[in-house]
Amino acid sequence: MKIGLDVESGERSFEELINGAFKSLKSNPDIEIYIIGNIGRIKNGFPQIENNQKIKLINAKEIITMHERPIQAVKRKKDSSLVIGIKLLKEKVIDVFFSPGNTGATVAASVLNLGMIKGIKKPAMATFFPRIGGGETLILDIGANPDATDEYLFLCAVLGKAYYKLIWDKQKPSIGLLNMGVEFGKGSEIIRQAFNLMRDIPNFVGNVEGYNVFNGSVDIVVCNGFTGNSILKIAESMKKFFLSIFKDAFLENNMSSKFNTAISYVLSRIGIYTKKKRIIMGKILPKYFGAAPLLGVNGTVLIGHGNCNSFDIENTISLAKKLDELNFVEEIKDNIKKNIKKD
Amino acid sequence: MKIGLDVESGERSFEELINGAFKSLKSNPDIEIYIIGNIGRIKNGFPQIENNQKIKLINAKEIITMHERPIQAVKRKKDSSLVIGIKLLKEKVIDVFFSPGNTGATVAASVLNLGMIKGIKKPAMATFFPRIGGGETLILDIGANPDATDEYLFLCAVLGKAYYKLIWDKQKPSIGLLNMGVEFGKGSEIIRQAFNLMRDIPNFVGNVEGYNVFNGSVDIVVCNGFTGNSILKIAESMKKFFLSIFKDAFLENNMSSKFNTAISYVLSRIGIYTKKKRIIMGKILPKYFGAAPLLGVNGTVLIGHGNCNSFDIENTISLAKKLDELNFVEEIKDNIKKNIKKD
Repeated sequence: MKIGLDVESGERSFEELINGAFKSLKSNPDIEIYIIGNIGRIKNGFPQIENNQKIKLINAKEIITMHERPIQAVKRKKDSSLVIGIKLLKEKVIDVFFSPGNTGATVAASVLNLGMIKGIKKPAMATFFPRIGGGETLILDIGANPDATDEYLFLCAVLGKAYYKLIWDKQKPSIGLLNMGVEFGKGSEIIRQAFNLMRDIPNFVGNVEGYNVFNGSVDIVVCNGFTGNSILKIAESMKKFFLSIFKDAFLENNMSSKFNTAISYVLSRIGIYTKKKRIIMGKILPKYFGAAPLLGVNGTVLIGHGNCNSFDIENTISLAKKLDELNFVEEIKDNIKKNIKKD
Repeated sequence: MKIGLDVESGERSFEELINGAFKSLKSNPDIEIYIIGNIGRIKNGFPQIENNQKIKLINAKEIITMHERPIQAVKRKKDSSLVIGIKLLKEKVIDVFFSPGNTGATVAASVLNLGMIKGIKKPAMATFFPRIGGGETLILDIGANPDATDEYLFLCAVLGKAYYKLIWDKQKPSIGLLNMGVEFGKGSEIIRQAFNLMRDIPNFVGNVEGYNVFNGSVDIVVCNGFTGNSILKIAESMKKFFLSIFKDAFLENNMSSKFNTAISYVLSRIGIYTKKKRIIMGKILPKYFGAAPLLGVNGTVLIGHGNCNSFDIENTISLAKKLDELNFVEEIKDNIKKNIKKD
């Protein structure tokens, strides 16, 4: 598997991202990594990098920043790390491309250069959430499209189902439509129309609510990109909130008595806090986090968080490897063909 | 303060809600509670209730269920606990009304019977979230209106500011508009228009993301009701998820070694898990939870979660008392007058 990494577009330094690539190569000796960025800077930062047989450096003279208008930036900056990466993917020089940069620009570059899978008009981004009792729940769209039409929500259900089946090898994942109540007839006109379109999808369970994301009662939750994006960011931020509370509660702070302070001191000295934290972290991180695939485009594009670190890069590369082994795009195409009769 | 409690419309039994009322009376001997429901059943369940000087029973022959269409139900069921409660509020027999029932019906009954505050066209529901480092963040709308116009979002900002000032006595709370990125010009047409309308509000900080709800960088987050409702339910469900993980990590389950199992056993025997859990719970619950006020209507209506329990009722009554002491509706009116020049 050959993966292209855009190391210029994120909010972190290229060093952080390249360190993730190095770590990943240790556990995945069979992959090749195309690092796309400012070669001069990269060689300065990593003098030995040229000797690494598993790494290829691709020079990019421009960077699309987080603040640029997507379509304009993609059309103007042909020499940007993002556009170069997407083109390498189009030309099949690489199998998967990853960028932690401007999401809108990555979506635009993908749609303009790779095109859409037949039957799909707009792409969607999907990510897994962990849940009570194990397993994972897929949410989409998480931000490829802020405004969703009923047809788009229906296509999200179809794309999500194909992706879920592929990743978890579950033949009939259940699908729910996010709504403000589970009762039939709830929600805006668009939601009600989407409900009607989804009815024919096998294993469509109807309306679901935010609760269903974590309680494991449904495998796939479909929503518009604005809401999905907000949910994702709330969840990430809440994770930090809980870890900070957990730390406060177990270490010195905010203890209500001397006895508790003493106990906390002992717990911290014998490493209980660290051990417990490791167990907790293992459970709150979904398996394939770090990046979300852009579903519906004709190529394997992974979009990362702007603030992604070396650990996220390792996970992204694991996901890329899995998707490549599973023949991601072809499988999605097959599923779309089977599920969309019209068009 | 006289509060009316609709004990028929929620998903829990009337006994659960009335138990909350009793508990609340112990710590608040100065309030009076009007319990609105099926008097026969209530007297059977609580034979001594008639002797309680602080409780008045109001009979309601009908119930509006969670599944009914709001406006139709409110117009048809004049003898429902919900409609009777709203009318008692209108006639100033009670100062605050609470219902844990059908949100849409509660909004409809309030708007139809109490009317809107001058300058406000549609009500909004707001709730507080806890945050890292203390303090609370207000989110609105959380479900009074699924589809928001730009003007509605602007009015949410004005209402939220008035409410925040009142509850936390903070003269200049900061306000953010929830968006898919913090950069200027992000989001749909409605969001961009709302941004333009909000610019003139002092302490408007611009676009914010889900992260800002928990990290304490903004006091008030404005969003459409569909997204707000989803965020609220995700957060509630995530709280359960974290507590379940915390429990697993600290009690017997999922231990990775005999040493850890033994340590966990000791921790559980000496009550550490329970003590720590109490500290954690105290930090993840915002101060005034249990119910959200319906902002913008001409009366103090609190809307509870359908599944609210006796503990939530106690908190709801604390919030009701605070709002009543603060002269809630009049204060909101004053603020609206100052902030909305047009109209």
